[in-house]
Amino acid sequence: MKLNIPQAIRWTGDELYLLDQTKLPGEVVEEKQETIEMVWHAIKQLKVRGAPAIGVSAAFGLIVGIRDATNLPLEKFIIHIAKQAAYLDSSRPTAVNLHWSMVRMVNKAKSQSANSSAELYKALVEEAEAIDQEDKAFCLAMGEYGAPLIKEGMGVLTHCNAGSLVTSGIGTATAPMYVAHQNGVPFRVYADETRPLLQGARLTSWELQMAGVDVTLITDNMAGHLMSKGLIDLVITGTDRVAANGDVANKIGTMSVAILAHHFNIPFYVACPSSTIDFASTTGDEIEIEEREWDEVTSFGSRQTAPEGIKVCNPAFDVTPNRFVSGLITEKGIVRAPYRENLAELFDAHQSR
Amino acid sequence: MKLNIPQAIRWTGDELYLLDQTKLPGEVVEEKQETIEMVWHAIKQLKVRGAPAIGVSAAFGLIVGIRDATNLPLEKFIIHIAKQAAYLDSSRPTAVNLHWSMVRMVNKAKSQSANSSAELYKALVEEAEAIDQEDKAFCLAMGEYGAPLIKEGMGVLTHCNAGSLVTSGIGTATAPMYVAHQNGVPFRVYADETRPLLQGARLTSWELQMAGVDVTLITDNMAGHLMSKGLIDLVITGTDRVAANGDVANKIGTMSVAILAHHFNIPFYVACPSSTIDFASTTGDEIEIEEREWDEVTSFGSRQTAPEGIKVCNPAFDVTPNRFVSGLITEKGIVRAPYRENLAELFDAHQSR
Repeated sequence: MKLNIPQAIRWTGDELYLLDQTKLPGEVVEEKQETIEMVWHAIKQLKVRGAPAIGVSAAFGLIVGIRDATNLPLEKFIIHIAKQAAYLDSSRPTAVNLHWSMVRMVNKAKSQSANSSAELYKALVEEAEAIDQEDKAFCLAMGEYGAPLIKEGMGVLTHCNAGSLVTSGIGTATAPMYVAHQNGVPFRVYADETRPLLQGARLTSWELQMAGVDVTLITDNMAGHLMSKGLIDLVITGTDRVAANGDVANKIGTMSVAILAHHFNIPFYVACPSSTIDFASTTGDEIEIEEREWDEVTSFGSRQTAPEGIKVCNPAFDVTPNRFVSGLITEKGIVRAPYRENLAELFDAHQSR
Repeated sequence: MKLNIPQAIRWTGDELYLLDQTKLPGEVVEEKQETIEMVWHAIKQLKVRGAPAIGVSAAFGLIVGIRDATNLPLEKFIIHIAKQAAYLDSSRPTAVNLHWSMVRMVNKAKSQSANSSAELYKALVEEAEAIDQEDKAFCLAMGEYGAPLIKEGMGVLTHCNAGSLVTSGIGTATAPMYVAHQNGVPFRVYADETRPLLQGARLTSWELQMAGVDVTLITDNMAGHLMSKGLIDLVITGTDRVAANGDVANKIGTMSVAILAHHFNIPFYVACPSSTIDFASTTGDEIEIEEREWDEVTSFGSRQTAPEGIKVCNPAFDVTPNRFVSGLITEKGIVRAPYRENLAELFDAHQSR
């Protein structure tokens, strides 16, 4: 069965197309990235979002930014590459994968033994394609390892969007679902709408629906009720960052889902490519929680839904303690408690991004 | 300190004014009810909402519907009263207090020993005013019993709107907050926005803000996170129906809040006038959960936020098992477990509405 899933990033060999995710699900618009400035704005304005997808987009975006400069002498071309990479890197300072991708491309340029700018350009295209392929392979591996968790007839809950839209492949949390679906396993997905920005309603339910997965949209406060009614057998979410001890930082609301799952004896898994593991954070307590703008909570679209001047809390993330996590689905297999030991064993604990 | 809270229902002695709650918080519009048809539509269209407020509105609405008919002979006037009451009763068939209020008014008319239609009319105005006064007194009593739960510096979480807007008094869940506020106790309230209909954002945060209570609006999925950060010391919600064993049916999401509060050792109280106790329901399992329209979840205002054709769940209520309830704040005092015995003892278990 061929999967029909949206492609956040499409590289034709010489052109980069990005899906404008800010318009979803109302309009499906793929934009050809004519200039590096377009890519910069696409990242800045969240047209492309999610750590892996940003890293891949930036690698191809850099190619867009250097392809017309291969007539420069090699030394000047390398300086140009570094400048363009630094420019793209400035589009979203907190995106770890963006910085990592730009460092990798520039290091490649500097360490390359190319004899000409044209030759170096070709090597960098290959490097960007390698970054893209690695991301696709990581998604697929998480899918293969995670799919056996999904048994026939199960109800699977997910929170926020950790789907194909945030990667160049089949997503992180969605990867096991897509692989199980391709294997012909019948199951149901419940997608939390994920206030305030509604990634679950706008993105997750859209991409799963497109792929033909049986998906039902719910408001965040319904998940516990469905659990109590026996409709949910498994939870899989993504993550923004996992501490060395297995504490999971993810979209606000994830921790509540994990505690409710624990209460109802429902397994709670987190899809977690190794790039998301932050061995520098000993525990989740060290992960800083971003506080976002108040108007995300007080309005919807252009319509104000709360009284003028009302105080608001708007933490973007919460931290799920490791004891509520049944397992981390990584590209090297499912890691279980004790997480500190098992993560360090499976991955090089001293690696940095 | 005089409380500045919105009045859902205002009776001047001969005129009825209802606040149009569908326009809140953007517009504050009080509508003079010229005819019984206007009252019928106000109830139907949820301009007035909440069991106690509907009961009181209907009692005064009946007065509006009979005030021009006192020239009828007494016998015909009584028939007219019964007809008008049946008409008003048809505006929202599932509203328990609406039916109860109409039965009480008609019984009063039939049992009255008035010598003239004018005399009977006067007695019915007094009955409607008695229903109104009783509701106000119940709210105040719940407030007095519940207020001591709120200590200086506490963070109090509430879900949905069980405020002054659903009663003719100071609300149910909000009553302890208003009394504590009047007593000069400083505390903070967190109001869950309460998807899908956002009663917390539109109504609770508005009325608490108006009263000068320190209130912060959050999305439903933030409550657990705030609990984990030690910001919430007490939860008080309202209820739509309490079973004889203390199981609590209330707005979707309440059960999840209760389980999370239990997990974090935070007391969870339910404000519950005796009119809400359904001794005919042995446990909460017998309470039917209304499933509402799908478009409440897929759109907001006129803006669609989910893909076309997406499947949706939309249960209006959930049932919180009695073991998660620290106490029921009633007009006769706080009732604690074992609920079946203690509720039956405090109230007449055989009473019917």
